[in-house]
Amino acid sequence: MPNGFKASGIKAGLKPSGKPDLALLVAPEGAVCAGTFTKSLVRASCIDICIDRLKKNSGKARAVLINSGQANACTGERGLLDSLRATKALADRLGLLEDEILICSTGVIGLPIPIERLICGLDMLVEDLSHEGGFAAANAILTTDLVEKQVAFETYLDGQRLRIAGMAKGSGMIHPNMATMLAYISCDVGLPADVWIPMVHRVVESSFNSISVDGDTSTNDACLAFAAGPPLDKQHIDILEVGLKKVADHLAKSIARDGEGANCLLEVEVIGAFDDVAARTIARTICSSSLVKTAIHGCDPNWGRIIAAAGRAGVDFLPNELSLWIGSYQLIQQGDLLEFDPKVISDYMRKQRAGTYLKNDSISIRLEIGNGQGAAICWGCDLSDQYVRINADYTT
Amino acid sequence: MPNGFKASGIKAGLKPSGKPDLALLVAPEGAVCAGTFTKSLVRASCIDICIDRLKKNSGKARAVLINSGQANACTGERGLLDSLRATKALADRLGLLEDEILICSTGVIGLPIPIERLICGLDMLVEDLSHEGGFAAANAILTTDLVEKQVAFETYLDGQRLRIAGMAKGSGMIHPNMATMLAYISCDVGLPADVWIPMVHRVVESSFNSISVDGDTSTNDACLAFAAGPPLDKQHIDILEVGLKKVADHLAKSIARDGEGANCLLEVEVIGAFDDVAARTIARTICSSSLVKTAIHGCDPNWGRIIAAAGRAGVDFLPNELSLWIGSYQLIQQGDLLEFDPKVISDYMRKQRAGTYLKNDSISIRLEIGNGQGAAICWGCDLSDQYVRINADYTT
Repeated sequence: MPNGFKASGIKAGLKPSGKPDLALLVAPEGAVCAGTFTKSLVRASCIDICIDRLKKNSGKARAVLINSGQANACTGERGLLDSLRATKALADRLGLLEDEILICSTGVIGLPIPIERLICGLDMLVEDLSHEGGFAAANAILTTDLVEKQVAFETYLDGQRLRIAGMAKGSGMIHPNMATMLAYISCDVGLPADVWIPMVHRVVESSFNSISVDGDTSTNDACLAFAAGPPLDKQHIDILEVGLKKVADHLAKSIARDGEGANCLLEVEVIGAFDDVAARTIARTICSSSLVKTAIHGCDPNWGRIIAAAGRAGVDFLPNELSLWIGSYQLIQQGDLLEFDPKVISDYMRKQRAGTYLKNDSISIRLEIGNGQGAAICWGCDLSDQYVRINADYTT
Repeated sequence: MPNGFKASGIKAGLKPSGKPDLALLVAPEGAVCAGTFTKSLVRASCIDICIDRLKKNSGKARAVLINSGQANACTGERGLLDSLRATKALADRLGLLEDEILICSTGVIGLPIPIERLICGLDMLVEDLSHEGGFAAANAILTTDLVEKQVAFETYLDGQRLRIAGMAKGSGMIHPNMATMLAYISCDVGLPADVWIPMVHRVVESSFNSISVDGDTSTNDACLAFAAGPPLDKQHIDILEVGLKKVADHLAKSIARDGEGANCLLEVEVIGAFDDVAARTIARTICSSSLVKTAIHGCDPNWGRIIAAAGRAGVDFLPNELSLWIGSYQLIQQGDLLEFDPKVISDYMRKQRAGTYLKNDSISIRLEIGNGQGAAICWGCDLSDQYVRINADYTT
């Protein structure tokens, strides 16, 4: 983990499955924290606590407690009191102020946390804190995820080592604008809150807010990014942002790839739009289309569904200036359908789907429209029978 | 069919399956036609032809030719010429002007119509025209639909008989704002275009534009509503609109119920919103949520997903003033979760799903928010494994 950061993850008995369910990340003194949260009106009280405390302390925070047993959303007054009690108990054990502790929850909406169990788990959680605890924490924040999602970036700037590490969880209810996802990033250089916070917001927009699994946004989603350490020379700010973007992109792609029931990553690039916002709107719409996603699942180069999705995105463009590629195969050249063998492209898609996790198992779609210089990439996944089964059977 | 209207439907050999694929509806002289069309930028040239001709003739039109073999969308210049050739050939056979003929197509995007076969079929199509031809036409416009969708409304106004009949097709790519759906309505009273057209637009908004199967909007969708006959007394206009709404609602619900892979109709009513538009936005978002739809498929009263969908609809409301019902079971009362047995509600949902087509097989969700008098009802369906299989395997 980056210098000075510690983490831990344990089984506190919050999940019926008995899997790890409670994680802690502690940042060194002086840490600034940038937070981005679900935009849903119906949000868990733990999100309100994070927003209030970050605001009150001008972005200063020292730790975040994460439970993956219950979302503790729509649990009313009781849910709020449970969250407050948990952060108070943790603050006492860490010798910190209550206000320096953030809290996140994920799991089934409407279920309260078995708070006594959580409180009982805090001693072990604090005892286990270590510089090597990142893996245990990354494992303890998962719900229906199939794999842990962790990544680290390291570079040297004038002899000063810079490390950025991240962990995240998905994997249903994932849609642009913070869906059921939690992401935690730590970085061991110090920089003012008014530089770090806007940088994190920029990066979140083109990473976590550019993925979609099923179009649903959740009540609990949060990305918290801590930075603490020796001050970073201003000339290196750009390199820091590049590193941060690499970490966030990797985590975002991991979440999309591990979408519920997903068999492959879908990458949609739109170029030549009026501006980046227009490009992202089109790319998101394609990534979120059930018909595109089922075609990808069936390894079917059904280009009609792709451009139909682009057409309903609400962004103006000229259909007869549109060019389309699936992988390296061009299908449409400025509105004209080219000669191509659907079987060849279908074989390519089948081969990609059979790739190794996040190595070769992505299917890329590129759309060029003739409106300007705007560009964006969004990520999603195929829509499979398993997605339906997972979500039809989740709580009952 | 309403007085003076004729229809026919035949097998012209446009579909590989050999099923009926070409339909014709002819309205009596003087008919006015209101059309609403897909809002997608990428739309078939037949839609352009309809829009142009209705505009040019101030809403006058006499016939519509519908082929269900190929969408003839994204087929460039050739697609446009084929459509023009078809309407010209039909106009010659009907003794009408080319401009009085409208044309619609549905099927796979990107495939052109086998135009010679279509032209060859026109003689038989015209020969078969009859007052009783509605069923043959309703059958010939279907693609992946499992059942025909037809309905008629009849009443007497001061001794004058009023009849409204409608037919429609779905069943994938269905989302508010005219998705892959075609609907044709005929009505045997005469009224001015400036009364009929706004009335049809109002009714379409709360019927066809209030359904969603999969969130995808298509390139070819159209609703055409013809009215021709003895002038209707102004005092009866309201009754006409009630009848038109009944016909459109029935067809819209039929389309949602017959959504690809659907096992039941989902009816979402939102009341107490700031205005009807806000209510419809929330109802649509719930109806379109993959997580709500899979929960319905699993007969799972997963209320958390319902209110999470409401929360991300982009409409302002106070979550703690929200009340929720599934069927007649109340789950939330002004933000407070009530005591209920999930098994009882699950059994109710299972029983509803087992109902007869459009009789008892609907699951209703009612959401009350405390913002005002706005209300809306939207319809959708469950999301099943079959939906994925149908759409993963459609063209290959």
